[in-house]
Amino acid sequence: MIPEKEMKALAVKTDSKIVLLILDGVGGLPLNGKTELEAANKPNLDTLARNSIGGLTDPISPGITPGSGPSHLAIFGYDPLKFEIGRGVLEAAGLGFELTNRDLAARGNFATMDDDQVITDRRAGRIPTEKNQQICAELQNKIKKIAEVEVFIRPGKEHRFVIIFRGDGLQGPLTDADPQREGLKIKFTAAPALESKKASDVVNKFIKEANSILKSHHPANTVLLRGIAKVPQIPSMAELFKLTPACIATYPMYKGLASLVGMKILTTGDTIAAEFKTLKEQWPNFDFFYVHIKKTDSYGEDGSFENKVQIIEELDKSLPQLLELNPAVIAVTGDHSTPAVMKGHSWHPNPFILHSQWERKDHLTAFTENECARGILGRFPATDAMPLMLANALKLNKFGA
Amino acid sequence: MIPEKEMKALAVKTDSKIVLLILDGVGGLPLNGKTELEAANKPNLDTLARNSIGGLTDPISPGITPGSGPSHLAIFGYDPLKFEIGRGVLEAAGLGFELTNRDLAARGNFATMDDDQVITDRRAGRIPTEKNQQICAELQNKIKKIAEVEVFIRPGKEHRFVIIFRGDGLQGPLTDADPQREGLKIKFTAAPALESKKASDVVNKFIKEANSILKSHHPANTVLLRGIAKVPQIPSMAELFKLTPACIATYPMYKGLASLVGMKILTTGDTIAAEFKTLKEQWPNFDFFYVHIKKTDSYGEDGSFENKVQIIEELDKSLPQLLELNPAVIAVTGDHSTPAVMKGHSWHPNPFILHSQWERKDHLTAFTENECARGILGRFPATDAMPLMLANALKLNKFGA
Repeated sequence: MIPEKEMKALAVKTDSKIVLLILDGVGGLPLNGKTELEAANKPNLDTLARNSIGGLTDPISPGITPGSGPSHLAIFGYDPLKFEIGRGVLEAAGLGFELTNRDLAARGNFATMDDDQVITDRRAGRIPTEKNQQICAELQNKIKKIAEVEVFIRPGKEHRFVIIFRGDGLQGPLTDADPQREGLKIKFTAAPALESKKASDVVNKFIKEANSILKSHHPANTVLLRGIAKVPQIPSMAELFKLTPACIATYPMYKGLASLVGMKILTTGDTIAAEFKTLKEQWPNFDFFYVHIKKTDSYGEDGSFENKVQIIEELDKSLPQLLELNPAVIAVTGDHSTPAVMKGHSWHPNPFILHSQWERKDHLTAFTENECARGILGRFPATDAMPLMLANALKLNKFGA
Repeated sequence: MIPEKEMKALAVKTDSKIVLLILDGVGGLPLNGKTELEAANKPNLDTLARNSIGGLTDPISPGITPGSGPSHLAIFGYDPLKFEIGRGVLEAAGLGFELTNRDLAARGNFATMDDDQVITDRRAGRIPTEKNQQICAELQNKIKKIAEVEVFIRPGKEHRFVIIFRGDGLQGPLTDADPQREGLKIKFTAAPALESKKASDVVNKFIKEANSILKSHHPANTVLLRGIAKVPQIPSMAELFKLTPACIATYPMYKGLASLVGMKILTTGDTIAAEFKTLKEQWPNFDFFYVHIKKTDSYGEDGSFENKVQIIEELDKSLPQLLELNPAVIAVTGDHSTPAVMKGHSWHPNPFILHSQWERKDHLTAFTENECARGILGRFPATDAMPLMLANALKLNKFGA
């Protein structure tokens, strides 16, 4: 990919508009001979594909299954191997918690341990969210600081919470304070380097204090902490690409990701139609829109092939709302694949189409994995998608004379 | 791309001959459904394509529109992000001016400013070349040195000139002494780092002296200087690839580029037929020939779709002169695309075909962008073209045991 320094020098501000439509986990595998995209009746997407160029993207590297964090960073034009985002940072940002560069964030689970400190349930029987909120409030009330380090505890859904440690000299990332499997003893975090010793001491002190307070809260009588890290120093999309970007997403984590690269998070409804309505309303105010459709991935994770197909069809019905805005560039792709038959993220590359008046004629007949595989973009790193979108919106100057 | 050290170790000297035929800016975009290459009647190129393997090259990175300097460096096998060539160096080399490593070169424009030093015409009404020569002679006569730094001024065509500052401790690159747009005040150069302060002081002193001398030469009453930099330290093609390379080109800039990588610049005529005649005459003397056809790019820049098509057809008629020499390897490609409908360089990848007895069978039917897109070379960085040519000429040893 083109280095940051060169990208900053090439990018120019223009009025042209780009829409990046991410159908989360849309790429799939065949069931009865057809993938989810091949099975879906989606005339609008297929027509768009016939007027686009196509290819397949690898978010990280061929064969590597990505999490949502790195796969989104890649499609936003950032090297996912360079900018690692800890799960705690992602969740905190998604909850709207404004992180500073003195913060260390971790994703937490309430869990159950027995008298020998052996984990018997990593999710504490999926306690109700209300119970979670009550425990978090008690912990927060009793633990405001560890030495001079401030502690912020925020409940999520069921057994999940986020914890932020704020103080000077807290270096991350730390190893997970989580044995990963039931039947193993609880685990403390460790400092992989000398400079993160202070941080690991603080986190481990918190775990001990929490275990003591949680004694009376069986089954939620201990905590597991994962993805303990600081906010990476990511240049904003304004700085790197001279964009004024906005995010239209329904799930916290994607809003969190978008805010980390400097997108404005727009308030929107829960449905695809509501997301496209927001797009229309906010059309004059931004030059880059990231529109995120979550449920293709959720149904893929659930193994619900038919439901995933239906979401693609629902998206297809709303697509004309996007098309009538006539963006200079439309890109439609997934962040990663989530084949329903695998019930999880996979390494398969993502179908990618790009529509613009400045592209050659491709010969795609539909928006599917195999059609994109024979597109003129070929197979390419997802990090090249952003330069391609910018180029087609005429937002990049010439490199060299 | 393969690193320099490994390339030097692998390359061997052989008698086999390679011809790299660059149709500058040949890749295009459709007008009435066909690109320039699709519209051209070019039976010889298409037959060659049917007996070649094909692919599409990205000179810098997908989405990045290159200037001619970096795009040529890439196709010559050099990393264009590593070796940056300033416009001044390029033009000076193209005029046959032998640059040393004490030289800082800049591309100049004579321009018009008003009494408030606001630029009103960046090209001084495109003064005649004779007038340019006369002004350059006067400037050279009056400014031979700035402090202990020697100054060389060489006229180009119309309003263009090249200036070389020769002295110790001149570091570049400097920022352009050019406001880039009319309606803005003249601009001096700046030193982006402390070590280039001496150079920027010398250049700015020159600009002030020139402005004083040019007072009587309205409309050519000031100068704009761009691409102010030193010669980059580039290993020669002899050193890197063990080639004895020659350049057959009609335009100064391409000769300049070729000389920077150590090619012998052959004297030739202005037509394509003349270039191929030179190729034949010099056939015994070199093992690598870079043949450059300029006008595909020029007509692309002018937006003359039909003329660009005609140049492709003219080239096609001369192609048998090349084929009958029976080179071990023939590669035909563009350095970058210049779609006539865009009237300028673009980011679109370049059609590339390679003919050799040692290649697999591809299924191309013609030399066009879309045929090359489905070629077995796929889409690849232009920097890989040179190793592919060398391999097919059996000029590379095995890597490792």
